[in-house]
Amino acid sequence: MEYEEPKFFRVMRYAAAADGDVIDMVSGNPDWEPPAALREALREYADLSPDAFQYPPSEGLRELREAIAARRGVDPGRIVVTNGTGEANYLAMARALDRNAGDEALLMDPVYPYYPGKTHLLDGEPTLVPTERDGSLDVDAVREAASADTALIVLNTPNNPTGAVYDRDAIRAVVAVAEAVDAVVVVDEVYDRFDLSGSFESALTLDSDRVVVTSGFSKSMAITGFRVGYAVFPPEHVDAAKTRHMLVNVAGARPSQYAVCHALAETPPEYYAETRDLLADRVEAFTGALDAAGAEYSRPDGGFYVLARFDGYPGTMANVKRLVDEAGVAGMPGDAFGSARDEWVRFALVTPRAAEAAKRLADRFADR
Amino acid sequence: MEYEEPKFFRVMRYAAAADGDVIDMVSGNPDWEPPAALREALREYADLSPDAFQYPPSEGLRELREAIAARRGVDPGRIVVTNGTGEANYLAMARALDRNAGDEALLMDPVYPYYPGKTHLLDGEPTLVPTERDGSLDVDAVREAASADTALIVLNTPNNPTGAVYDRDAIRAVVAVAEAVDAVVVVDEVYDRFDLSGSFESALTLDSDRVVVTSGFSKSMAITGFRVGYAVFPPEHVDAAKTRHMLVNVAGARPSQYAVCHALAETPPEYYAETRDLLADRVEAFTGALDAAGAEYSRPDGGFYVLARFDGYPGTMANVKRLVDEAGVAGMPGDAFGSARDEWVRFALVTPRAAEAAKRLADRFADR
Repeated sequence: MEYEEPKFFRVMRYAAAADGDVIDMVSGNPDWEPPAALREALREYADLSPDAFQYPPSEGLRELREAIAARRGVDPGRIVVTNGTGEANYLAMARALDRNAGDEALLMDPVYPYYPGKTHLLDGEPTLVPTERDGSLDVDAVREAASADTALIVLNTPNNPTGAVYDRDAIRAVVAVAEAVDAVVVVDEVYDRFDLSGSFESALTLDSDRVVVTSGFSKSMAITGFRVGYAVFPPEHVDAAKTRHMLVNVAGARPSQYAVCHALAETPPEYYAETRDLLADRVEAFTGALDAAGAEYSRPDGGFYVLARFDGYPGTMANVKRLVDEAGVAGMPGDAFGSARDEWVRFALVTPRAAEAAKRLADRFADR
Repeated sequence: MEYEEPKFFRVMRYAAAADGDVIDMVSGNPDWEPPAALREALREYADLSPDAFQYPPSEGLRELREAIAARRGVDPGRIVVTNGTGEANYLAMARALDRNAGDEALLMDPVYPYYPGKTHLLDGEPTLVPTERDGSLDVDAVREAASADTALIVLNTPNNPTGAVYDRDAIRAVVAVAEAVDAVVVVDEVYDRFDLSGSFESALTLDSDRVVVTSGFSKSMAITGFRVGYAVFPPEHVDAAKTRHMLVNVAGARPSQYAVCHALAETPPEYYAETRDLLADRVEAFTGALDAAGAEYSRPDGGFYVLARFDGYPGTMANVKRLVDEAGVAGMPGDAFGSARDEWVRFALVTPRAAEAAKRLADRFADR
C-alpha cells in the first residue's frame, strides 16, 4: 500500500502558505472550551502516585467503561476503550472483515475518506453506495449492492460530510440486509452530541448482534488530541477485538482516559447544550450567507459540516485553492468524499469566524 | 484469530486473589517516580488554550520528533511517534511483512510474547530461533533459520526476559543475513536506558537501511500508561508506516506527548543514572538471595528482569501459582516466553520489595 497524503493536509498547508488572512474551515478540530472538569482532572492526575501512571487495563479504565455503559445502556463487558474513534472504527471494521464472511465493505457515498482507507488496509474491497440527495440512507441501494461477498456495512450518523441524521427505521432495514448476507454493521456515532434535529437515535437501541457502535469524546468534549474513543461490540465479537487492540496498542493513554472519566461524571448537560446552540447559530449564519451567495447547500441535521455547491465551480482541489486565494476561506474538496459530491465543497463550522467566512463566500460569488 | 488471555493477567489475578501477602514481580510496571518535569508539564498543559487539546500531527509533535532525532542522531523525518513501543513494533513488523518479501518472522527464543502475537495478527509465520544459554545472539542459528521466505527478524536488546545486551557485531551479522534474504530487522530498544553493563550500542549506529529501531518512554520515564513510543524507519519505509499509523490510530495522545517532550528536555542525566543504580542494587540483592537458594539464574546486563531456575521446579503456570501460595512471590512462567526457558521463572525487579522476595524464595527452597 502506498502512502497518499490526505487531501486535507494539502489544503491546510496551502492555506497556511497563502499571503492573506485565511479562515480555516478544513479540519474537524473544535475551537471551543473543553469541559472545566477535564482540565481539573488533568491537574489532579499530575499529582497522583507513580502507580497511576502505569498501564490502564487494555480495554480501558474500569470506571470509564462503566460510565460509558451506563450512558449507552449496555453491559460494560461489551466496551473496548480505544485510541480515539479512529481506532474504534479500525477494530470494528477488522472484526467484520476477519470472519471469513467476505471481503466487501459497503460504504455510503459521500464517504468519510478514512473508511475506504481502513478497508484497503484490512485487505477488504470498498464499494460506494449512493445516498439520497439530502444525505439520508437509500436502503434500496444498500440492498441492491449487498451480496454474499459483503462482510461489512459502515454507517455514520450524524454524518460527515452531509450532516444527515439517519432514520432509525432505515438503519434497522440496513441491519436486516446485513443479516441476510452475514455482514456486520458498524455505526460511527461520534457526532451524536451534535444532533441539531432532536431526532437522533443510537443504533444500539436496535439491540442487534449485527451492530457495532463506535464513538468517542474528541468532538463532544473538544479534545481531538486526547484520543479517547470506544466501540460497543456484540458479545461474540468482544474477545477478538480486545486481542487486536492489545496486539496493536497494548492500551490507550491513561492521562486522557482519567481526564475524560472525570469530565463525564462532572460535566452538566448544559455544557453539551451550549455547544449545540453555538453550532446551531453558526449553521444559521453560514447558510444565510450561502443563500445570499446563491449557493445550494445541505442544511445539517447534526454534526458541524456544511456541504455547499456553487454553480459552475465544482469542488476540485484546484477550485478549493482558488477559494483560499480569492475569498480567504479554506474548505475541503468534495471529491475527497467519493464521487457523489464532487461538485461540492465541505466547510467545517469549527471557527468563531464562520459567519465572516460565509460573507466572504457571498462576496466572492456575488462578484461573478 | 481467537483470544487467548495473556498469561500474565492470569498470574496477576491469581496473586490478587491469594490469601496472604504477595510480592508482585509479574508486570513490567516501574514503581519509581517519573521525572519531575513530566508532572510539571502536565500541570502546564491543563491550562493551555483549546487548540493545544486538538490533534497533534499524526507522526507526533514536531518538537518531540526533533528531540528524539537529536538524541538518536537521525533525521526527524525518519521518526513516527506511536501509541507506545507496542504500536511502534506493530508498525515496524507490519512494514516488514507487507513488502511481498515472504511471510516468515524469525523471533529469538525466549521470546517476548507480543512478538508472535503480532506476527499472527499480521498474517505472518513466526519461527523461534534459539539463543545462547546466557541469552546472547546465536548468529549461526539465525543464519541457518533464514530463507527466501524470511521477511522479518525481531531483536530486543536489552532483552526481556533474559537481560542480555546484544553485541553490536552480532547484530551487524544478523543484518547481513537479513540483507541476503531480503528481510527487515526490527530492533526493540525500549530498555536502552537500563543498560547495566555499559556495553549497549544502538542498532542505529549500524546505519543500515535494513534496520528499524523501536523504543519509547514507558520504562525510561516510568510511565507505561502514557503510551508514547516511536519507530525510526529507513527513509524508504517511512511513508507506508505513517499511512498505517494514520489509518489505525490517526495520532497519539497529545497530553502524553507534550509531557514527555518537556520531560526529555528538562530531565538531567542523573535521573536515569539513579534509576540504573536502583536497579543494579536490586539485581545485587535478588541474585544474592538466589545464590542462597541454590538457584541458577541469568544476571541481567540490562533491563529489569531476572530469569531463575530452581532444580526440580519447572516454570509452569501450576508451579508459579504454587510459589504465590507457598512463598508469597508472583513471577511469570518461563513457558510464556517460548520453549527455551520453560524450566525457568521470570521475576521483574520493579518492586521495592525485590530483596524481600528473594529472601522468601531462598526460605522456600531451603525448606525442601
